[in-house]
Amino acid sequence: MKEYFEDAVVGRRREVGHHTVNEEEIVRFAREFDPQPFHVDAAAAAQSFYGGVIASGWHTCALAMRALVDGFLADAAALGSPGVDEIRWRHPVRPGDTLTFYNTVLEVRPSASKADRGIVIGETEALNQNGDVVMTMRGMTMMRRRPA
Amino acid sequence: MKEYFEDAVVGRRREVGHHTVNEEEIVRFAREFDPQPFHVDAAAAAQSFYGGVIASGWHTCALAMRALVDGFLADAAALGSPGVDEIRWRHPVRPGDTLTFYNTVLEVRPSASKADRGIVIGETEALNQNGDVVMTMRGMTMMRRRPA
Repeated sequence: MKEYFEDAVVGRRREVGHHTVNEEEIVRFAREFDPQPFHVDAAAAAQSFYGGVIASGWHTCALAMRALVDGFLADAAALGSPGVDEIRWRHPVRPGDTLTFYNTVLEVRPSASKADRGIVIGETEALNQNGDVVMTMRGMTMMRRRPA
Repeated sequence: MKEYFEDAVVGRRREVGHHTVNEEEIVRFAREFDPQPFHVDAAAAAQSFYGGVIASGWHTCALAMRALVDGFLADAAALGSPGVDEIRWRHPVRPGDTLTFYNTVLEVRPSASKADRGIVIGETEALNQNGDVVMTMRGMTMMRRRPA
């Protein structure tokens, strides 16, 4: 394990990964989980006010999660998450977009009841290739404290 | 279109759908989007404090979204969502669990800038077959107003 609760430093911002989305995966995700016309139907999407297929916001969140896991959670003493606050889908994600994900540590809270862990609160942002912020969210991660 | 902004009545709670999750889909989702050991690796999960494979919280959110689309959004004048607040993963979701999804209208806000639409704020809950609340979230949906 490389990272424990103690390694989360408030204010640290780092890139955790990037991903280029294609239309096939946008439509595949949305057919299973969010089959609204502007996510799954190119013709209907072209007529909508989005002007073309856009990714489900949940797909963007899921891609951010994957970046967080690959970027550091896979090598961290992470114990899961009690939740996420303030997800904002700020800009459409379209086929061909390359998203880069950043994570910033906002707050660290040692557990009041369990001496072996704490909560790390972090802001995750997704930016596209033009620098548009397409999504932000504030997540909580339970992490083990470094063993004595 | 069956449902417009005007049809969202504060306080209305309704069941929007249900879904039984199996281990194959839990692992498939998590391998793509959230490959932490307690989501993808049965042996590692058995050793974790979860005691077995549990669904990614994002998977539960995605299943809730699918229920919302099938339950009413597909027949509503929905224009997408600016975001979601206060997602809380309150109880593990395990293979074989049957989740039932409920949606309650909390608040309706006519748009200040665009006369043809408004925002509906709703609470979505997922309960398992034992009545445990496994997930709650508060989402925003843009909806068209009923044409005059």
